[in-house]
This record gives sequence, C-alpha cells and structure tokens, in this order.
Amino acid sequence: MNYNQLVENIKRKRSFLCVGLDTDIKKIPAHLADKEDAIFLFNKAIIDATAPYCVAYKPNLAFYESLGVEGWIALEKTVRYIKENYPDQFIIADAKRGDIGNTSKMYARSFFEHLDVDAITVAPYMGEDSVTPFLGYDGKWVILLALTSNKGSHDFQLIEDKDGKRLFENVILTAQKWASTDQMMFVVGATQGKLFEDIRAIAPKSFLLVPGVGAQGGSLEEVAKYGMTDDCGLLVNSSRGIIYASQGEDFAEAAAAEAKKLAEQMSTLLPA
Amino acid sequence: MNYNQLVENIKRKRSFLCVGLDTDIKKIPAHLADKEDAIFLFNKAIIDATAPYCVAYKPNLAFYESLGVEGWIALEKTVRYIKENYPDQFIIADAKRGDIGNTSKMYARSFFEHLDVDAITVAPYMGEDSVTPFLGYDGKWVILLALTSNKGSHDFQLIEDKDGKRLFENVILTAQKWASTDQMMFVVGATQGKLFEDIRAIAPKSFLLVPGVGAQGGSLEEVAKYGMTDDCGLLVNSSRGIIYASQGEDFAEAAAAEAKKLAEQMSTLLPA
Repeated sequence: MNYNQLVENIKRKRSFLCVGLDTDIKKIPAHLADKEDAIFLFNKAIIDATAPYCVAYKPNLAFYESLGVEGWIALEKTVRYIKENYPDQFIIADAKRGDIGNTSKMYARSFFEHLDVDAITVAPYMGEDSVTPFLGYDGKWVILLALTSNKGSHDFQLIEDKDGKRLFENVILTAQKWASTDQMMFVVGATQGKLFEDIRAIAPKSFLLVPGVGAQGGSLEEVAKYGMTDDCGLLVNSSRGIIYASQGEDFAEAAAAEAKKLAEQMSTLLPA
Repeated sequence: MNYNQLVENIKRKRSFLCVGLDTDIKKIPAHLADKEDAIFLFNKAIIDATAPYCVAYKPNLAFYESLGVEGWIALEKTVRYIKENYPDQFIIADAKRGDIGNTSKMYARSFFEHLDVDAITVAPYMGEDSVTPFLGYDGKWVILLALTSNKGSHDFQLIEDKDGKRLFENVILTAQKWASTDQMMFVVGATQGKLFEDIRAIAPKSFLLVPGVGAQGGSLEEVAKYGMTDDCGLLVNSSRGIIYASQGEDFAEAAAAEAKKLAEQMSTLLPA
C-alpha cells in the first residue's frame, strides 16, 4: 500500500487507528482457549468486529513466536484473512528486526515475500546496511524505531552527541537519507508528549507509528496536537486496551466498542 | 549452561569456535535441496561433521523465518538434535530481538522455554526494560549488540556523547548494571580490530560473541590479541566460510575441514 492509499483510507474512515494483535494464548477468553485454532479464531473475531473503525492491524511477532510453529501458522492465517477480507487494511509486522545486510535480506524475504505484509518495524542500531534490504519492495514500508514508548527509551535514545543532538534525532536525520516518506515511517511512543514537536521539526511529513495509547498511558490528544500533519501522518496503535476489553464471551463486541470510541475521538481530531 | 561450564568446554576442546547455522535453502547442495526436510538434513550433517571442533552453534533466525512455518519446524528440530546429541554445545539463537517489557517477556518465553536455547542476541536500542525480561532464567544468557561487524555499525554505534563516550561504550557500561558476566555477553564484530582494546577497558571479563571472521574479512589473530581474557572470553563465529565450504556432495567433509582449520588456529592462540 502506498502513501496516498493510506491517506485516502484515513480520510474516508476518519480514523487513524491501528489495532495491535498482541494475542496471548494465556489471555484469550476461556471458551476459545481450548480450541485447536484458538489464536486465529480470536484474531478473526477481533478483526471482524474492529475493521470498520481502524485502518491498520499490527500483529506483534513475539506473541506468535512464543508458540513456535503453531504460532507461525496462526500468524500466517491471520495475515491471509485480513488480506482476503479487508484489503484496505495496512498490515504491520511488529518484529523489530535488523541484522547485517545478507541477513536483513532474508528477513525482508520472510516478511515481504512469504508473509506479504505492508510494513515491518526495524531497529536502527546496526545502521544503513541493516535497513536498506527492506527498501527494495514497491509499496512496502520500513517503520524504524526512533523514540519508543517504554521507560528504557531514556537509556540510550536520549543520549546527546557533541552538538546536542539526541540519538533518536540522529536516527531520524540519518535514516531520511536512506528512504523517502513513501517508504519509511518512524516509531514514536505516545508517552513522549511534547517531544513530538521535536520530531516534527526534523520529520515534518513522515508517518509516525505511535504505540502507547491505552495500557501504556499515552494521550491521544497530545499526540494529535503535537504530531499531526496535513495528511494526518499518524497511525496510533492500541493493543491490550482493545483486544482484552473483555475476557468474556462478549470480547469481540467489547473490542469493537473500544475501537469505535477511539475512532470517534480521532474523527474529532482530524481536520474537517 | 553457566560461565564455568562454557570455559571448561573451551579449555577441553581447545577451541572457541561457534558455527553459524545460517542455512539458506537457495545455497544448500542440489542433492539435498529437493528433499522434504532439506534444511534439517543439511544442518544435521554440518553438526555431526563440525561438533568436535566447536563449542557453540548459532542459528540465525532470519534464515528460518524466511521459510515461515516450515523454517520454524527445521529450527526446532535442529535445536533438539543438538541438545540430544551434543549436550556440551552452547546454542545461541541469533535473533536480535528486543521490545517493550511485556513483549520481551514473550520473546524470552519463546526462546528460553519453548525453543530452550542457551542464549539469545538482543538489540539494545530500547533500553533496560527491553532486556531484563530475558535475564530471569538460570543458566540462560543475553548477548547484547555492542559493536557489530557491518559497515552500518559506523552510523550510530560510534556517535560520541558530550564526554566523548561512544554509543557502544554507553551500551556496555549501562548494560553491565543490569546483569553480571554470568548472564550477559556482548556482540563485537571481528572487523573492529583494535577497538577490542577499548571494549576490554570497560568489559574486562565479559564473554564476547565475535562474528565477522571469514566471509566478512575479520582477523582471528587480531581478535585474540586484543580481545582474549584469562578465561578466553571469546566465542568466534564463522557461518558461510564453514557451512558453504563446498556445495557438492562433500559439503559436510569440507565444513569439517574448515572448522578444524579454525580450531587448530584457535588452539595456538589459547594459553597452553
């Protein structure tokens, strides 16, 4: 999916919500947990219920890998289900990969050829040749970690260099030389508040993938206030707040209600 | 496997070689490639041939993930085969993972409970809470990226802060507060030459996992000269140079010959 298609979807649905499919077998409702295909059945119900309110889905690989082969089967089925039934949804593999060029090429093959998602999150630590192998695919995106939502983001990402530039700024400035705003987004945690202004000062047009609303405590208003561009430029993710809104038999309806609430809030924040 | 067991194995075998199982379906010998279980059959032959000369195996996850479910099956079979037949081998999942705490916990479950390897490589960018979930397992290790072997290592890892400390030094200094030398190693590329001295100045006893000998051009002598401790403190990895030494029917013998050559060189570098 390219930049214009993504912007169109956001405008049409008046939502920039991404639903995080962090599906933990230990947290899904009891009436599903025993079934053979539990993870996929849970995801399918969540997707069917939330699709009207979101423009993207983001399965986090960790949750699938924790089950080994069985988890990969569930992931592949989930991605295929979204592509076949909701082709206007942007699918992000939240994998935070990155390795030497030779190896990143294999990861690119895995996610863009085999799994065939629209985007993958990548960690910047290993630099250019760890990122560029993901850029050779038309309509596919790298979403590079810049300023994450967790407490540990302060350990290294805020270290200032001799000119006062912080590491996340060095990452954004350098990475923009590798790819255009049509191929690269940045991860910026919703918990970072006013730092969104500093990001927009150096990446005025880039899409930002924003986790951390909901369970992690970030504010949607603040993100929109400091981070929104003319084309929206935001994909705000909520995972646990939506998919575990209820752990009863009504989990899908509860997820839909939470997604709808966020989408309605987003609609008021988007330009009319 | 704990620190002392690893050191014992190195002393007994007089080798600190790690064989990288970067098994690419497109590169394995023609007579195997068509078989259903090609990846595992290739790995099994490589392992049987090289086990006398090495102390560790390091499958890189990218190569398995690129095949989806089938790749995960091959990976699980490979790990199980090593554990059952060569229990003195240290198994490293080269996965370069790292995510928010909640998610890193899932990765830890995946690699240390489900797959049950000895160590996992982790990317430091997201800081403490992305790393500590991997530290709750007895005898299991985090191998943190510090100074990698690729060209892109210069993009961010060498950025100096206001006190002149480079990012890789900040990573090592900070991460040593999270875990002892019994639980944490660092990745340092063999291509980094004299920078090993700077690493040993701040991490005098830590084990270093050293990729980049062979195909990537690093020198074993230099690594040993600047990086070796009284307990060796090095695991030097070679992947392509060993596993693709021949692409004919003699691939396993050729791999054994390459591994033996490196082990003999290592023996001369270890203290008598």
